[in-house]
Amino acid sequence: MWQLQDQTASQSLLHIGLLTSGGDAPGMNAAIRAVTRTAIQAGIRVTGILHGYIGLLEREWQTLDTASVGNIIQRGGTVLKTGRSEAFRTAEGRALAARHCRELGLDALVIIGGDGSLTGAHLLAEEHGIRVIGLPGTIDNDIWGSDDTIGFDTAVNTALEAIDRIRDTADALERLFLVEVMGRTSGFIAVQVALAGGAEEVITAERPFQAQTLIDKLDLARGRGKRSSIVVVAEGPRPGYSYDVAAQLEQAGHAAKVCVLGHIQRGGRPTGHDRVLASMLGEQAVRSLLAGADRVMLGVDQNRVVAIPLQQLACQRKVLDPRYIDMVATLAG
Amino acid sequence: MWQLQDQTASQSLLHIGLLTSGGDAPGMNAAIRAVTRTAIQAGIRVTGILHGYIGLLEREWQTLDTASVGNIIQRGGTVLKTGRSEAFRTAEGRALAARHCRELGLDALVIIGGDGSLTGAHLLAEEHGIRVIGLPGTIDNDIWGSDDTIGFDTAVNTALEAIDRIRDTADALERLFLVEVMGRTSGFIAVQVALAGGAEEVITAERPFQAQTLIDKLDLARGRGKRSSIVVVAEGPRPGYSYDVAAQLEQAGHAAKVCVLGHIQRGGRPTGHDRVLASMLGEQAVRSLLAGADRVMLGVDQNRVVAIPLQQLACQRKVLDPRYIDMVATLAG
Amino acid sequence: MWQLQDQTASQSLLHIGLLTSGGDAPGMNAAIRAVTRTAIQAGIRVTGILHGYIGLLEREWQTLDTASVGNIIQRGGTVLKTGRSEAFRTAEGRALAARHCRELGLDALVIIGGDGSLTGAHLLAEEHGIRVIGLPGTIDNDIWGSDDTIGFDTAVNTALEAIDRIRDTADALERLFLVEVMGRTSGFIAVQVALAGGAEEVITAERPFQAQTLIDKLDLARGRGKRSSIVVVAEGPRPGYSYDVAAQLEQAGHAAKVCVLGHIQRGGRPTGHDRVLASMLGEQAVRSLLAGADRVMLGVDQNRVVAIPLQQLACQRKVLDPRYIDMVATLAG
Amino acid sequence: MWQLQDQTASQSLLHIGLLTSGGDAPGMNAAIRAVTRTAIQAGIRVTGILHGYIGLLEREWQTLDTASVGNIIQRGGTVLKTGRSEAFRTAEGRALAARHCRELGLDALVIIGGDGSLTGAHLLAEEHGIRVIGLPGTIDNDIWGSDDTIGFDTAVNTALEAIDRIRDTADALERLFLVEVMGRTSGFIAVQVALAGGAEEVITAERPFQAQTLIDKLDLARGRGKRSSIVVVAEGPRPGYSYDVAAQLEQAGHAAKVCVLGHIQRGGRPTGHDRVLASMLGEQAVRSLLAGADRVMLGVDQNRVVAIPLQQLACQRKVLDPRYIDMVATLAG
Repeated sequence: MWQLQDQTASQSLLHIGLLTSGGDAPGMNAAIRAVTRTAIQAGIRVTGILHGYIGLLEREWQTLDTASVGNIIQRGGTVLKTGRSEAFRTAEGRALAARHCRELGLDALVIIGGDGSLTGAHLLAEEHGIRVIGLPGTIDNDIWGSDDTIGFDTAVNTALEAIDRIRDTADALERLFLVEVMGRTSGFIAVQVALAGGAEEVITAERPFQAQTLIDKLDLARGRGKRSSIVVVAEGPRPGYSYDVAAQLEQAGHAAKVCVLGHIQRGGRPTGHDRVLASMLGEQAVRSLLAGADRVMLGVDQNRVVAIPLQQLACQRKVLDPRYIDMVATLAG
Repeated sequence: MWQLQDQTASQSLLHIGLLTSGGDAPGMNAAIRAVTRTAIQAGIRVTGILHGYIGLLEREWQTLDTASVGNIIQRGGTVLKTGRSEAFRTAEGRALAARHCRELGLDALVIIGGDGSLTGAHLLAEEHGIRVIGLPGTIDNDIWGSDDTIGFDTAVNTALEAIDRIRDTADALERLFLVEVMGRTSGFIAVQVALAGGAEEVITAERPFQAQTLIDKLDLARGRGKRSSIVVVAEGPRPGYSYDVAAQLEQAGHAAKVCVLGHIQRGGRPTGHDRVLASMLGEQAVRSLLAGADRVMLGVDQNRVVAIPLQQLACQRKVLDPRYIDMVATLAG
Repeated sequence: MWQLQDQTASQSLLHIGLLTSGGDAPGMNAAIRAVTRTAIQAGIRVTGILHGYIGLLEREWQTLDTASVGNIIQRGGTVLKTGRSEAFRTAEGRALAARHCRELGLDALVIIGGDGSLTGAHLLAEEHGIRVIGLPGTIDNDIWGSDDTIGFDTAVNTALEAIDRIRDTADALERLFLVEVMGRTSGFIAVQVALAGGAEEVITAERPFQAQTLIDKLDLARGRGKRSSIVVVAEGPRPGYSYDVAAQLEQAGHAAKVCVLGHIQRGGRPTGHDRVLASMLGEQAVRSLLAGADRVMLGVDQNRVVAIPLQQLACQRKVLDPRYIDMVATLAG
Repeated sequence: MWQLQDQTASQSLLHIGLLTSGGDAPGMNAAIRAVTRTAIQAGIRVTGILHGYIGLLEREWQTLDTASVGNIIQRGGTVLKTGRSEAFRTAEGRALAARHCRELGLDALVIIGGDGSLTGAHLLAEEHGIRVIGLPGTIDNDIWGSDDTIGFDTAVNTALEAIDRIRDTADALERLFLVEVMGRTSGFIAVQVALAGGAEEVITAERPFQAQTLIDKLDLARGRGKRSSIVVVAEGPRPGYSYDVAAQLEQAGHAAKVCVLGHIQRGGRPTGHDRVLASMLGEQAVRSLLAGADRVMLGVDQNRVVAIPLQQLACQRKVLDPRYIDMVATLAG
């Protein structure tokens, strides 16, 4: 379990706002529950803002109490709904959002979301002095500064369950399958799923796809008597990338079936890991606010809870150790 | 539980062959185990033929004993592998297959597979006098004469799990999702999944898709305040049909996200239902052979185990009661 | 899928009550949703009564509308709560319940529950002329007249998942495990789970436990080289019965580990089968009421939806075909 | 993902032995696969020893090749079987084990197991100069020096699934449930499960159970209108401890139902986390041996792979941060 922060409450808070933004991620509900209940026990009022920044602009919100976040910890999605607001990307949009924060009398705003959502929170803080704190909520695990994000573990397990199923068919039919998982610019899901799924190979943005290398490997495996294989493909620039890969393999005599896992990776009962991570970060977020935190995201680094300045998120990029990519091939035998 | 047949052993059998053919279906391993162990206990030798009819043509087979089918009941796929043989579709191919059956000294051949595989078995019997018995193994549940097929229940539950996940996201984002499930010519999976998943509507081959009807319904639901919906689409003539549906909806102002579930529906741990069905049919198949059965498929009809003459399979088509299609919409509210 | 009833609406109904009673069973929510939405579409008002008959006595009820049963089809338990009422077992209790039905202006009462709950409904009808219709909701599948009950399939799959897990350990440690499942007087869960789990043997109320027979079988299996075994035990007169069995085996030199599955068998996401069964029966229940049905339970028999007079439930007992018990041992090899 | 070690191969190894010992843990197969395949790719021969130290004493072993560890990564249990050897606890036993290691020509022995198994390995090394390296494989996560152990994450998720199910019933019946999970001397499983399951309270060895405190809390919750609760209990000195707790609560007017999860927590498909952890540690173990490691256990500390001297394991005890115990109650609302 993570090493918690040592914090002393030094601020008084009366009222916080809470929203989930961007793509939904399993565990968001656990974070909502933790923020709400920790705040209420500390005497802080909590307003839940609906549909992410959209609700902040369109005045969709409601008071949250202890009961209203009951029986949600085990649910995927987010009871606060989520969304992507084009208007909030504009200076006018953020000005309106800030006015609504003041109108509500919010002392601080807690944002659960990915990179873009947290960067948006940072702008709101910089431009209008709204106090903000962020929690990393995204299945992609591509947020700099935190080794882990809420939803990642569940997405890996969901994709893995699909792979375990596909392996049954790959094995029964002795075929090659390409399984495409989420991960536009980063291969975290792909590499974990490939390692855990016993895939032959993984194709991610981190290492440009070399058709010939993969074909050589598949030829070798075939020569060794291996007749079924699974290759995990990170979706890359756009979903469906694995069809391009399949076309190249086909030309070299390796017909492959393609499975694009798509949205099933996003929902579902969160894993224990994601529920505990989300609960802990939610609790720590309220304690951090009471201790004076502002313009930070809480994350975990080297197994400790840390506060990362939001301004750093946009300029840095989390890097995947390429040795894990190699490990996939080593362990495929 | 199904009403078993009353049968008296009247034949002596020394040696049977066993193969799985066509697409793999969860529960095939339970059937393999049941046929093998029931046969061995009755003093019958069992030869497992690999890769379906391909192995019968290419001499890929092995003796099965009690231990070789241990610890497989819970696995998806088929330990005998499966495949589709082009050669077996020709008269020459079947002649060769028959020669191999005689060479092996098989008194009968047990085939676990779908429509096409069982029809192939029938030709082998008609043309060459090989004694055959079939078990319905396909996730599509589209075999005439049996209310149920091995693998169908598991496929429904797998698709349902995906739908439950997608619903989390549909609900969080308040979007319309089209979820495409298997079922080329029949909507059995689609209708079960739609009913069980609480879908707004189901689109199957049984009832031609009327874009306007669906759009009216979605408009109505939207008017009623319903902001997220799931529509289940049977793949129809070719996988990806839901993209066509999405395009038509988009034109009418209903943007939809598409999820094609694909091969994940095929594998995985079989459900209790499929394991019991497969075990029971496997056991009954051996008892039927001992009682003299030939050129039949064992299935279940009105909750009883029945023997359907193989020649009837090709000419009849199982029909889906359209009231179940209506029920989806009624229960969607 | 089941053959639906042909029914013509001949009655006008304005208002029905709906309750779940006894132990909860997965799929009850699907039935609640189906009854409610079918009724509302037919212009009938629906009042949900809480905590089973307790709520009918203590005036705990609420109006159900289309939205209030949204997003529940995939949940275990029952949103109407359930309970066992001692008071309702008395004539005074039922008289009070009948007064409350009249006060509410109910034209009929729909009861989802087990044997005892449905028999209670029958008394309410006989003694006070309240119109009632029942749906079989119990994981035990021990209701006469229906081949299937809402919740049974899910319970079997839940127990099976536990068995699959235990088998990993039984196999790794090469030990004998006794796994106790629910089923006081009937072995339906036990036999299905034993068949599907590949158990060595099943012990149920239907066939008195003979220690020596089991010990001989285990000795034989051990002699054959089989080192791990699972025996499924129906709980019988009281939970924990498997400890007695273990003690007898221990004396004969077969140390066994005991797992009592208990309450985990009751909850959880219902399977596709249970959701479809519950949805279908719920819809048919409303149609049956409109067609004039009274004092019946809807069930499925020989794959058709049937109406069983409630008075028959108490006097008849569903029987398990003992050949299924034998099949467990045959297939264990 | 964990920060890997930087290591340079400096030793030549020709032959290693590999065994799993103690209770089985999900992910052991992934570790077996990783050790075997990494070794073989480095030109090292691998002998798999069966039944833990028992097999080392009784000469039960077999050569492992790339294919023999195929298709096992997704399986619970251990293909090498496991066991607890009384003989190995004696000096004579270990002397015999060492003789067999020499006879086999092992350059090193890899042990996957818990505390006791690794301490045993240390004695073998100290007394007889056998080179050993350990991997932490236990669902209890109670090994000092590593933040995580192979199998822990899966056990938490399995217990959590049971809790989610029980919650359905607790909620439907409005009852108090005590759920007993594994963890003799440490509450790691209990606290994670309680946090993730939204339990009202957790009872572990780390904080002596105070009946009155819990009763007060339950009274308070009841007063607030909360009618169903789950309390997670670590099994403590002996399984069944929760029955004692229930008896004390019953006296204070809080009837509770007890569920002892037992052995189902041990098996099952490992989670993605456990498969990746096991794969990574297995690969790193071989690389560490090539770099000269001896008498260490590989673990993860502050998100880095570390080598902990085996002699430290016996004398130190991993401590659970009590703030996590408090967090359970805070978040229960």
